[in-house]
Amino acid sequence: MTDRPNIVLVVMDDLGYGDLSCMGNTILRTPRIDSIAAEGIALRHMYAASAVCTPSRAALLTGRYPQRVGLVKVLNPRHDTGLSSWEYTVPELLRDAGYRTAMFGKWHLGRRPEHYPTRHGFDEYAGLLYSNDMHPVELFEGEEVVTADVDQAALTRAYTDHAIAFIERHADRPFFVYLAHTMPHIPLHVEDEFSGRSAGGRYGDVVESLDHHVGRLLDRLDDLGLADDTLVMVTSDNGPWFEGSTGGLRGTKLHTYEGGIRVPFVARWPGRIPAGVVSDEPVCLFDLLPTLAGLAGATVPEDRPIDGTDVTAVLTGGGSRAEPRPLFFFHWWTLNAVRWGRWKLHLDRFPRDPSRAQDKELPQLFDLELDPAETYDLKDRHPDVLDHLTGLAARFEAEMVAQREAAEARAAGR
Amino acid sequence: MTDRPNIVLVVMDDLGYGDLSCMGNTILRTPRIDSIAAEGIALRHMYAASAVCTPSRAALLTGRYPQRVGLVKVLNPRHDTGLSSWEYTVPELLRDAGYRTAMFGKWHLGRRPEHYPTRHGFDEYAGLLYSNDMHPVELFEGEEVVTADVDQAALTRAYTDHAIAFIERHADRPFFVYLAHTMPHIPLHVEDEFSGRSAGGRYGDVVESLDHHVGRLLDRLDDLGLADDTLVMVTSDNGPWFEGSTGGLRGTKLHTYEGGIRVPFVARWPGRIPAGVVSDEPVCLFDLLPTLAGLAGATVPEDRPIDGTDVTAVLTGGGSRAEPRPLFFFHWWTLNAVRWGRWKLHLDRFPRDPSRAQDKELPQLFDLELDPAETYDLKDRHPDVLDHLTGLAARFEAEMVAQREAAEARAAGR
Repeated sequence: MTDRPNIVLVVMDDLGYGDLSCMGNTILRTPRIDSIAAEGIALRHMYAASAVCTPSRAALLTGRYPQRVGLVKVLNPRHDTGLSSWEYTVPELLRDAGYRTAMFGKWHLGRRPEHYPTRHGFDEYAGLLYSNDMHPVELFEGEEVVTADVDQAALTRAYTDHAIAFIERHADRPFFVYLAHTMPHIPLHVEDEFSGRSAGGRYGDVVESLDHHVGRLLDRLDDLGLADDTLVMVTSDNGPWFEGSTGGLRGTKLHTYEGGIRVPFVARWPGRIPAGVVSDEPVCLFDLLPTLAGLAGATVPEDRPIDGTDVTAVLTGGGSRAEPRPLFFFHWWTLNAVRWGRWKLHLDRFPRDPSRAQDKELPQLFDLELDPAETYDLKDRHPDVLDHLTGLAARFEAEMVAQREAAEARAAGR
Repeated sequence: MTDRPNIVLVVMDDLGYGDLSCMGNTILRTPRIDSIAAEGIALRHMYAASAVCTPSRAALLTGRYPQRVGLVKVLNPRHDTGLSSWEYTVPELLRDAGYRTAMFGKWHLGRRPEHYPTRHGFDEYAGLLYSNDMHPVELFEGEEVVTADVDQAALTRAYTDHAIAFIERHADRPFFVYLAHTMPHIPLHVEDEFSGRSAGGRYGDVVESLDHHVGRLLDRLDDLGLADDTLVMVTSDNGPWFEGSTGGLRGTKLHTYEGGIRVPFVARWPGRIPAGVVSDEPVCLFDLLPTLAGLAGATVPEDRPIDGTDVTAVLTGGGSRAEPRPLFFFHWWTLNAVRWGRWKLHLDRFPRDPSRAQDKELPQLFDLELDPAETYDLKDRHPDVLDHLTGLAARFEAEMVAQREAAEARAAGR
């Protein structure tokens, strides 16, 4: 099985679609992440399954809509719910296929022992269970809190050191590293050596430090002779929040406009992904589960709905789907938006507009090829598309709502 | 006084900064408005004094911050307040200087007789007193309601017909026409001949019809031999709302990010404004009062604070200020933002973020030259600028709040 790649998945927290030089940014410098795109592929229509952290990560790890997992909103340390033991995750799937697995960074899928990363397929874990603005900010190693006095400025380096050490220890066999950086989520902290270095202020310093540490990881893979055997991916969990660039897309984190859900995604795998490919095929982070399963020779569970599809053809060369599939974007249990081919339908709005006028203009139908910034509503021009997507949306929302009770019971451990 | 120009001021309602071809739009076609920029000037850093209608228009007509006028939020037909008789407006100033004055379109500065446009300097008026989504939608002529069964699709043409007829009747003497279009505020209505014509959906149809009717007005001025004697300006009252382009600027109507307050502004005055000038000098619509006073040989009142300054040098050739002045942007009585030179400071946020996390990241300081999309906060990098603007803001907000009671009393007619 020498074709099976090692897999390194780097997820930044709240990094914007437009925050990387290779995505058009002219203020920040991200040469090392850019090099991944240059040596591999940039998927310019990669979506997070949600505009906020917890549901996005739930979908990423399970290949399923967050609603199926019962984790539809952001968890905080007061919540008792979390990722059910019944869910089958990317690391479980890869571990079952013979991979050694490790996670370093932000979990955000529950705080009870049964929710811990180590109970969901990761052989090793170090990191924060929550966002870095949720207190207490406790650093876990395995299942133990090693400090509640976390130096946030040291986290990016520390996670990277953990990842490199894990890779060094497992260089002889397939491994999966999920490196879920705490930054650039606020509060922004950065090592002294990067402080004041970027033209983009503290946020820029943080992004440039993340880039530097991604570079260290790439260098180590190269040094170990693992570059050709390792699929490295860098992405984000949702759009930017108070700072950060959407690259001109509308909305930010929290919104299901493109700026809230479209995420940067670059990947390299020399020999398998040609250099410099750019794809505009719509893809979602929940596609990673079946895709990585295919690459790893692992089995996708058949006893539950898996929403992701195997996008290996896209990832390894920019293939495209014969027929578009719909991608649905919720706020909690409300279906806000549907992407289908070039079209995007908005049915609801969050945050709710304080003028309470949203009923005056919804639904909205945008042509993302013509109008990537979601500027001009075309519902009057394309009633057939409106009808089709409205029907798809209604059926899918009904399906999700129908299984709400069961999904929430699983997330609550009942 | 043959040098005194006729003045035509066209204000669209909620038209976005990026909705015109001459402002970079690639979807909508606005050749007639573009021709104004081509034959004259585009001011790319023109601001409305507020991110919503009523305060923006109060400032436009008085040359003063909306807080001084006591009109800080959007009026609706249930409100009794309005533009005080004590205020001295652009049309009063021009009428006092010998101009014939007329207004056609949306007023939005009060509903009581003493608030009517005809009581504030306009010899003639026809239009809606409110936004077209506020009921009843009544069409006024002078001080009488002529119909409560308004055909909104006919308004753009009807206002333009009124303006043209007024110009024809007063072609021999200086005139001022304030053409305050109801569109593209929602609900969007458009004549059949424009319906379905634009690539930008119904909103695009509406904008293209506005462009067509601006063209009719330009043509009539040309036919009458008045082109060289007439300053024609086209602008908007705030950023776009549910549709419409900010041209990549952050935020929309309601926000004091640039997308909510920066408005398109083009002007032509053959012989006085050179063709094809583009200026990035920060200007505000409340500058029109002293500027037009200068052009008309009129007198700016000295018995009250006037916040606008005479920007004739900018308007007629792209001059710039030796020293930047601060421009302040409020939500109601709260000072949200300050523009000063290349800098923009954000102190508060509206709409309030539902995550209630705004205290985590405010204030924000952006360098609009480097970062026009207000992406990366530089407050840590420029503490001197932060201190200076924070001080300016605190003093100005205190000044406004100190005169709140008096301003509100005037607006209430007490």
